[in-house]
Amino acid sequence: MIDPDAYAALVCGWCLEAQAGQQVLIATTTLAQAPALALHRALLQRGAWPLMRLSPPELSAEFHRHAQPAQIDGFAPLELAEAQGADAHVRIDAPANTRALAGIEPGLVTRAARARRPLQEARMRLRWCTTIWPTAALAQQAGMGEREYEVFLQGALFLDRADPIAAWRELGARQERLIERLREGSEVRIEADRTDLRMRVDGRTWINSDGRRNMPSGEVFTGPHEPSASGTIRFDVPSSHRGSEVVGVELRFEEGRVVAASAERGGDRLAAALATDEGARYLGELGIGTNTGIDRATGSTLLDEKISGTVHLALGRSYPETGGVNSSALHWDLIRDLRDGGVLYLDDEPLIRGGVLVE
Amino acid sequence: MIDPDAYAALVCGWCLEAQAGQQVLIATTTLAQAPALALHRALLQRGAWPLMRLSPPELSAEFHRHAQPAQIDGFAPLELAEAQGADAHVRIDAPANTRALAGIEPGLVTRAARARRPLQEARMRLRWCTTIWPTAALAQQAGMGEREYEVFLQGALFLDRADPIAAWRELGARQERLIERLREGSEVRIEADRTDLRMRVDGRTWINSDGRRNMPSGEVFTGPHEPSASGTIRFDVPSSHRGSEVVGVELRFEEGRVVAASAERGGDRLAAALATDEGARYLGELGIGTNTGIDRATGSTLLDEKISGTVHLALGRSYPETGGVNSSALHWDLIRDLRDGGVLYLDDEPLIRGGVLVE
Repeated sequence: MIDPDAYAALVCGWCLEAQAGQQVLIATTTLAQAPALALHRALLQRGAWPLMRLSPPELSAEFHRHAQPAQIDGFAPLELAEAQGADAHVRIDAPANTRALAGIEPGLVTRAARARRPLQEARMRLRWCTTIWPTAALAQQAGMGEREYEVFLQGALFLDRADPIAAWRELGARQERLIERLREGSEVRIEADRTDLRMRVDGRTWINSDGRRNMPSGEVFTGPHEPSASGTIRFDVPSSHRGSEVVGVELRFEEGRVVAASAERGGDRLAAALATDEGARYLGELGIGTNTGIDRATGSTLLDEKISGTVHLALGRSYPETGGVNSSALHWDLIRDLRDGGVLYLDDEPLIRGGVLVE
Repeated sequence: MIDPDAYAALVCGWCLEAQAGQQVLIATTTLAQAPALALHRALLQRGAWPLMRLSPPELSAEFHRHAQPAQIDGFAPLELAEAQGADAHVRIDAPANTRALAGIEPGLVTRAARARRPLQEARMRLRWCTTIWPTAALAQQAGMGEREYEVFLQGALFLDRADPIAAWRELGARQERLIERLREGSEVRIEADRTDLRMRVDGRTWINSDGRRNMPSGEVFTGPHEPSASGTIRFDVPSSHRGSEVVGVELRFEEGRVVAASAERGGDRLAAALATDEGARYLGELGIGTNTGIDRATGSTLLDEKISGTVHLALGRSYPETGGVNSSALHWDLIRDLRDGGVLYLDDEPLIRGGVLVE
């Protein structure tokens, strides 16, 4: 079992660096009461104000099922006031059912997400962290027993290391060296089975994601030039998008725009996502996973996109700090494993081959 | 098992009369997820905004144990903004342990409560309702099995009636007739074993508590003239005050002020409560219980003070709508059962004798 206090020490001390007087929202489900209480303790000890936002795991599905049109297309004013007034926001993913939204019409989920964009944007202006706590549903989705999954997640979080915060700092230093190389390049090309995609990254900023905003993290990412993506890509890691599995996505890009899209499974979800808005058809992110504690896909994007030896692209919203300017209510990460022979080229020089950094 | 949807229909339709667009805070523990979700559904269906404020049952004890001095003596600004910005507030009492605060130093609990007074006052300006949901801890405190306690509570809430809202309306009409009689009187005298206490109520307003603010309710109450209470009273119903049991409280009043106080058990809690502030030594409320669905004390003030045939007095804060002007961070209801031969006189005429209204 992951020790809730060790987990809270990592989130509070590394991800949030919480300070006295700060108001910190803790958003999770009732399945994560143990870490939520441990965070509450850790924040109080630092003189910060923990604000518990626990939901029953069914809440989101219940909302979509019972909300009136005005509620789908709006939000409670107090939710925005809270997102604007807080100093930090931690979301702990802890579902009871990773397919809870499967019965909801995809267009409705997209519509509600679009209406909540101001909330999302306000939260992104805070110090924020998205993290995860083991549940039976996450283990099931990963195809593991609960105990096995907890051990896996402990490794992903570096909570199996003697000094987890030092381990994250070390990962950050390693990523910094990777970024120094990436900064020199202008064009990224991804070549793999059914995949040959180019995009430009010159002038854009690479971000060192060292576990402050995502815990676990272990990726470097940027925003590719919006009109630059050209070619095709097959994402071979199954993706969970708003509660439904989408498998075998293939996209064709011309001048940055998705001009053809298909999926082996979940094609309706893919179509609904692309129809979110015009920005949903453009790339908002190119990321490279580096977390060696994550060695396999478990169906959770937060973890899968960090697998060392994978690359991911997000449809939709850019992170402004990358220099990316794509705007959308969508931000959907799709993952390509390079460990079975794929290559990522930087200006036609192999940088990652077969999932391994070319030194 | 109480049907969560029937419960929510009562709270939403009678207690809150929730309207489209209203923001409604739902504050309870994770043990009351079923009614919280049912309320969430019922509010959405009315076009209102439910705002879930679920806490782990241990939260309050954890707070008192780990909070820094500045946190004991303050509160998060967002909590006040929320209390000021919402339209309604429902608190569902659903503890995992009714003695959770027993290990906390009483002075600390009082100090924290005093600091939270602005929050309390802001919430009282909203449409508010305090209600209760059966838990194992509440059943244990009542000396009942869980199933037996649920049946008892169902009766207290009138959820065993064909039309609960009609039953509450009928209780309100019955209480209105009692108030018409009380309005004619100037002085109330309570006479019972070890009890002879007089107080003036002329010019004060009697409130018909018909299940809108407390669910269950069933009481009429006013604020007695602050300097008028004179004599002694023994409260023979055990009381729970901030997580500790206080039994056999005896008070002596002179010119409205408590001049002597003792308790068979919990004397330190009684002393701490009286030391809250000067207003804590004066009466803020005189109430008469009328709920015939509640036939026995179960250790929960919300229920015990409504027992038909009892009378209660609150030390501390008055409800301004009664005309009472006593100000305090304390509001502690203490209950006297009149069913064993006690008499409540109105201007020397018996109004309640042996717990029964004299017609």
